Amino acid sequence: MSVIKPSLPKGTRDFLPEQMLRRQFVMGTMQDIFEKYGYQPLETPSIEKLEVLSGKYGDEGEKLIFKVLRRGTGLEDLLQGESEFTVRKYGDLVEEALRYDLTVPLSRVVAMYQNDLVLPFKRYQIQPVWRADRPQRGRYREFYQCDVDTVGTDSMLADAETIAIVHEVLSTLGFEHFTIRLNNRKILDGIMEYAGIRREITPSALISIDKIDKIGVDGVRKDMQARGVAAGEVAKLLNALEIAGDAHTVLAHLLDFYGENASLREGAEELQEIFTHLVAMGVPQERCKVDLFLVRGLGYYTGAMHESVVEEPKIGSLTGGGRYDRLIGMFLGREIPATGTSFGIERIIDVMTQLNMFPPQKSKTHVLIASFDKTTQASTLKMAQDFRRAGLNAEVYLNTVKLKKQFTYADRKQIPFVAIIGPDEQANNTVTLKDLGSGQQETLQWNAAVAQIKNILDIEK
Amino acid sequence: MSVIKPSLPKGTRDFLPEQMLRRQFVMGTMQDIFEKYGYQPLETPSIEKLEVLSGKYGDEGEKLIFKVLRRGTGLEDLLQGESEFTVRKYGDLVEEALRYDLTVPLSRVVAMYQNDLVLPFKRYQIQPVWRADRPQRGRYREFYQCDVDTVGTDSMLADAETIAIVHEVLSTLGFEHFTIRLNNRKILDGIMEYAGIRREITPSALISIDKIDKIGVDGVRKDMQARGVAAGEVAKLLNALEIAGDAHTVLAHLLDFYGENASLREGAEELQEIFTHLVAMGVPQERCKVDLFLVRGLGYYTGAMHESVVEEPKIGSLTGGGRYDRLIGMFLGREIPATGTSFGIERIIDVMTQLNMFPPQKSKTHVLIASFDKTTQASTLKMAQDFRRAGLNAEVYLNTVKLKKQFTYADRKQIPFVAIIGPDEQANNTVTLKDLGSGQQETLQWNAAVAQIKNILDIEK
Repeated sequence: MSVIKPSLPKGTRDFLPEQMLRRQFVMGTMQDIFEKYGYQPLETPSIEKLEVLSGKYGDEGEKLIFKVLRRGTGLEDLLQGESEFTVRKYGDLVEEALRYDLTVPLSRVVAMYQNDLVLPFKRYQIQPVWRADRPQRGRYREFYQCDVDTVGTDSMLADAETIAIVHEVLSTLGFEHFTIRLNNRKILDGIMEYAGIRREITPSALISIDKIDKIGVDGVRKDMQARGVAAGEVAKLLNALEIAGDAHTVLAHLLDFYGENASLREGAEELQEIFTHLVAMGVPQERCKVDLFLVRGLGYYTGAMHESVVEEPKIGSLTGGGRYDRLIGMFLGREIPATGTSFGIERIIDVMTQLNMFPPQKSKTHVLIASFDKTTQASTLKMAQDFRRAGLNAEVYLNTVKLKKQFTYADRKQIPFVAIIGPDEQANNTVTLKDLGSGQQETLQWNAAVAQIKNILDIEK
Repeated sequence: MSVIKPSLPKGTRDFLPEQMLRRQFVMGTMQDIFEKYGYQPLETPSIEKLEVLSGKYGDEGEKLIFKVLRRGTGLEDLLQGESEFTVRKYGDLVEEALRYDLTVPLSRVVAMYQNDLVLPFKRYQIQPVWRADRPQRGRYREFYQCDVDTVGTDSMLADAETIAIVHEVLSTLGFEHFTIRLNNRKILDGIMEYAGIRREITPSALISIDKIDKIGVDGVRKDMQARGVAAGEVAKLLNALEIAGDAHTVLAHLLDFYGENASLREGAEELQEIFTHLVAMGVPQERCKVDLFLVRGLGYYTGAMHESVVEEPKIGSLTGGGRYDRLIGMFLGREIPATGTSFGIERIIDVMTQLNMFPPQKSKTHVLIASFDKTTQASTLKMAQDFRRAGLNAEVYLNTVKLKKQFTYADRKQIPFVAIIGPDEQANNTVTLKDLGSGQQETLQWNAAVAQIKNILDIEK
C-alpha cells in the first residue's frame, strides 16, 4: 500500500473534539447574547469575486488575499507532460478569492439586497476568513471572525448597544479584569485641526499616535516630528491627548477647552450620549474609559471607536470596532451609516485557555452504556434509547470486551458515568450505575438512574 | 464615488437571516441527535495540501477540486504591466486546494493523531465543501456537508447506530414518508461471483446496476450486455438481485439459495445482525428495506451500504453511507475499519422548504422595545435589559420615530410583541404590551409582561 504522509498546510489547524467543545462554548455564548439583543444571523460565501475584495484592505492587505485558480485554463496540461504554460492576463488565471474579513461581505450584502432588507439591519456573522500571512504564535492563515453590526442608523444607541454586548460577552465568558477603551474619530480630527496639523499629514500623524502602547508619549513626540509635524503642533496635540481622568472628566475638559472646534464638539457629545445610554443599560462605568490615543488601525472609522483589553496576558485587544458611515457607499453609491464590533474569537479562546477559564471537558457524553454480553444486548440498546429520550447523551460501547477495558475507555474520554446491564439487572429491569467521579456504584431502576445522572451533572433538559 | 457593482461567484449563495434560521434549525437538530448518541464534533481546515486530496475522488472528481494559488509566484507582475508569465511546473503555482468532502479529511486526522485519539473515534463534522461543478438547480459550488462516522470498530452495532441516527434525524425534522434502503457490498460481490462475472468486469457491472432507477431492469440487462457480460450471466445476476419482499424474507431467500458463496453469506448475515440491532433500538421495521440494486457510487464501500429516500419530491437520496474498512489505510499504512453516513444537508433543506416543513419565522426576536421619546429612554433601556435577563430576546428600536413606523418594522420582521414605555407607564413602573398576532394590548407590570410573552410564545428558559 503506498502511503501518503499526512500533514496540514502552514497556518491551518484541525480542531479535535476537546478543542471543538471550547470553541462551541465561546461561539454559542456569543450567539445567544447577540440574539438576546435582536441580532440575526448572516452567512456569506467563502469565495468572493476578486473585484469585490480589491481596493478594500490597503496594499499590505491586498497581498494577503488567497486567490482561487480558475478552472479549465489549460494549466493542468503541465501535469500531463507539457513543458511550459504561458499566462498573458492575470484574470485568465484568477478571478475569485477567499473571504478576507466579514465587513466587506456585509457591505456587499447590504448593497445587493437593499430592497429586501428592513433597515436597521442588525446582523451577526461567525465564519472563517483567510489571510496568507506569515504564520506565528496566535496568528493563523485560516481563522474565525465574529462580527456584530447595525446598518442603517446613525443613532448613538446602536454604538452603546454594541459596547453593552462586548461587556456582556466578556463578563459571561468569565473575564474579570478588562477595560473597554473609547474614542471618536471626530475628536481626533478636531484636535489635529486645533493643533494646526495640515490635512495631508493627518493620516501619518494618526499612525504615530497608534504606536503609543509600544513607544510611549516621548516616542510619539519624536516619531511625529520625524513625520514632518512641527514641534509646536506636536506639543499642542499631545497636551490635548494627554487629558486624564474618568470618562466624564475627560469629555467635560475637552468640551471646556477645545469645544469651539465643531468636529471635536460633535465627537465628544456623541461619546457623552453613549455613556448616558451605557448607564441606563447597567454597564459598570469603571469598565469604560475614554482613551484619546485610541486610533484603531483601520482607516474606515468615521465616529466612535472602541476596543477591549485585558491586563494579563498582554496580548492586544480582544474586540475592536466603531462606526463606519462611509464604507457601504463604496458598493451602493449612496452612504448608509453603520456601526459594530469584531470579536477576536481566536485570541479570546487562546487567552481563556491560558488563564484556565474553560471547565475541563473532553466529551459531551453523560453516560457510557457498557456492552456486557450478547444475552443482554437488546435490553442494553433499548435502555440507551430510553436514556436518550430522557435527555441524556448516552454512548453505547460498540464491542463486547472486558468491562475493565470499557471503564478505561470512559475514563480516557472523561465520560462521568458507566451503566451496565448484566443478566441479574436484565431479570429485574434494573441497571448498575457507576459514578466514575465518586467511585460509587449502585443498582437502580432505569428512571432512577436517569434522575441520578441528571442530578449529579445538574442537567435540566 | 466609483461604485463596484456587487455580485456573487457562480454557484455560491448568501444566507440572509430567514434562510439562516432554517439552516440553524436543521444543523442544530442534527448536532443534538449526534451528541445524544455520543458523537463528538470535529473541524478540519478548508485548505488541504493537494497531495492529500489527489487520487481520492476519481478522474472526474479530481477535475472539480478548487485549487488555491500559491503566493509570491511572480504572477502578480502581470498586474503591473508585465506582458507574459511562464509557468514550468504545476506545483510552482498550486500546492493547496479547498476541501472536497469530509471523509478524506477524517482519514487524514485519524492517521495524524492516531496516538491521541481513543478508538473507536465517533465524530460528527458539519462544514462547507467546494466543488467546481457546473452550477444548476440544487447543485452549488460551495455547500455544507454533514457527516457522522465511527472509526475503529468492525462491530455491526456501529452500522446499526448510524441507521438509527438517520431515522431519528429525519423523523425529528418532520419527514413522514421516507425509506432507508440497505445493501451490502459483500452480497453484490457474492452474486457477481455466483453469476460467473469476471473480476475485471465487476466495477463496470456495478455502474450498470446503479442505473436501475433511471433505466429499469430491462435497461440494466441491455447495458450490461453492452459492457461485455454474457447473456446467461446477466440472467443469473438479475434473478438474484430481483428477490422481493421484506428484509427478513429477502435475506432468508439469499442465504437459502446462494448461501454457499462465502462473501454473500457474510454480507447477508451482517445485514441480519444490523436488523436485529435496529429492532432493539426501536427503529420501525417498515422504514428499512433491503434493496439489492443499491450500489452507491463511491468505490470505497466494503460492507453494509445504505441510503434514505423520500417518495415526494423525487430528488434522489437525502442521506447515504456505509462501511469503508480500507480507506483510512491509504493514509496510515494499516487498515482501520470505519462506517458512517453523510446527510445531504442542502438537499434536506431544499426538500423541507418545498414541502413547507419549516415554521414561518423571520426573526428569533420575541419583543421589540419601542422608543417612545427622550424622557422615557432610560427606563426603556433598563427594561430591555431586564427582559433579556429574564430570558427574552428583546430588540430596542434605535431611533425615536413615530410609533406607527416602529410597529411596521416589528411587523415586517415578524417580531410577535411590541413593548412601550410612555410617561404614564414610566410613572407607574408598567409597560404597554401589544401582541401583534392577536392585536390585543394591555398595560402590565414588567414581570407580568415577561410572563405573558413567555406564555404565549411557549418559552421555557
